[in-house]
Amino acid sequence: MSTPHDHDFDRATAVARRPGAAAPDDAGDTVSVHDVTIDGGWSIGDKPNGGYLLAMLARAAVEAGATIEGPGHPHAVAAHAAYVGPPVPGPAEVHSEVLRRGRGMSQVRARLVQGGDTRVEATFTLGRLLPDAEPWWGGDAMPVVPELGAERRTPTDGPGGVPLPIMAHVDIRLDPATAGFTRGAPAGVGELRARLSFADGRQPDALALLYAVDALPPATFDIARTTGWVPTLALTAYVRALPAPGPLVVRQRAGLVEAGTVDEICDVWDSRGRVVAQATQLAGIRTA
Amino acid sequence: MSTPHDHDFDRATAVARRPGAAAPDDAGDTVSVHDVTIDGGWSIGDKPNGGYLLAMLARAAVEAGATIEGPGHPHAVAAHAAYVGPPVPGPAEVHSEVLRRGRGMSQVRARLVQGGDTRVEATFTLGRLLPDAEPWWGGDAMPVVPELGAERRTPTDGPGGVPLPIMAHVDIRLDPATAGFTRGAPAGVGELRARLSFADGRQPDALALLYAVDALPPATFDIARTTGWVPTLALTAYVRALPAPGPLVVRQRAGLVEAGTVDEICDVWDSRGRVVAQATQLAGIRTA
Repeated sequence: MSTPHDHDFDRATAVARRPGAAAPDDAGDTVSVHDVTIDGGWSIGDKPNGGYLLAMLARAAVEAGATIEGPGHPHAVAAHAAYVGPPVPGPAEVHSEVLRRGRGMSQVRARLVQGGDTRVEATFTLGRLLPDAEPWWGGDAMPVVPELGAERRTPTDGPGGVPLPIMAHVDIRLDPATAGFTRGAPAGVGELRARLSFADGRQPDALALLYAVDALPPATFDIARTTGWVPTLALTAYVRALPAPGPLVVRQRAGLVEAGTVDEICDVWDSRGRVVAQATQLAGIRTA
Repeated sequence: MSTPHDHDFDRATAVARRPGAAAPDDAGDTVSVHDVTIDGGWSIGDKPNGGYLLAMLARAAVEAGATIEGPGHPHAVAAHAAYVGPPVPGPAEVHSEVLRRGRGMSQVRARLVQGGDTRVEATFTLGRLLPDAEPWWGGDAMPVVPELGAERRTPTDGPGGVPLPIMAHVDIRLDPATAGFTRGAPAGVGELRARLSFADGRQPDALALLYAVDALPPATFDIARTTGWVPTLALTAYVRALPAPGPLVVRQRAGLVEAGTVDEICDVWDSRGRVVAQATQLAGIRTA
């Protein structure tokens, strides 16, 4: 049986707790520090993917939240990241503070620090998801995304000559109905749909869903006239269930474009057709 | 002409910067402190409303982010709050750190501290919204909510005997089509719609929208069999435009109920029918 660290994603998100005294912050909470290495292979162009960074921060937060007494809260069920400035590949630190340890849930803040500056500020609600949980009410129906051959896999050389090194690690196959932008013919709907899996066969889990909600290109690529880099300002993700093995279906939708920003809504279903994650982000956009 | 502080909401969210040296935190960011007084009048039962607290934190964050050189970024365009534990009415502090001062946007973290403990941990993206901005693409159409007489105003004595002191300050008139829960007959759709204004005639602005996105009862009240207190774990709000004068239309929808949590989506339109705010929250729920 393989251990988590046999896989790309787990190596790239690894965290190592730094031994020694943790210092209290100004509100008296204890700060623990993890050393991390940001892997340049998980980038879009030269910018590390925001979901990848969020997953790394979640691992530090879960470890910071664990106690020696109990099994703790191993899953980030709610996550928020404010992207302050892109980090560069290489060493960085995660500073985590436990804001509250509850019976069913804990809340932890984690910040990615590099060169003395905060690059990502994240807040997590941690809990424990159970494999036999059933939806009680609601949940969007999974869209039909055709099974696609390997020739539809997103290549590592992106449109406009932007390198996409992350596509060596993940296998994203866009529904051809929403992939018009790749040949200069967006549908104008503001929606992208895809099947997503890890290239090395790693199965999805709660941690991977934090990456999955930020894995697709901006849904604004499906709107005519919009161009260029759409930097995420803030991302909120909810992990609602443990995903079953198999590819995920991901849908990314653009909401309102106004005053230089766009909100995007992401939904993720597992191979059973269950909603397993939901997210929203506010991103900057140029419409001139 | 009235100044902001003539109105209930502005008095209840007032912040007073504490003079003196601000201390750096563990990442070298400067912490500034504001004194605040949590007004028990803005409560549901004995719990201060989460949107009210978010607006108070936003005022401190905007002030912390301002510089002496320029006009600064007066509006919270993205806000996130993790509700760590409910504060009690009375004195508290807001500790703010500027994470980044950019040209168009700044990012500030603000935490509500009471009795030495963090009660709310918030992160803001600050910018400047312009009154003449126009939507460029998308935006949900405003639902039709009938104009309702004052007899439909939500009273200060809530269903089940829960006191709603906040209803003395705000005027919320639920669309009768979605108000079945008030007489024990929820529609089963998981959606509430209402017109919202301040009772004292204060007009909505960017700050007030942070309250508006958390003003309605839980949308789960419109689902059969759900009962009780639905505590918000985390709330994300985007303020998309400056609202025109007049009542707001607010729609609160329940998403998926599973594993003890529900996601709720809130949209707010101004009197012109423009989307002015959007929000999502993850809340705890008992379904047994």
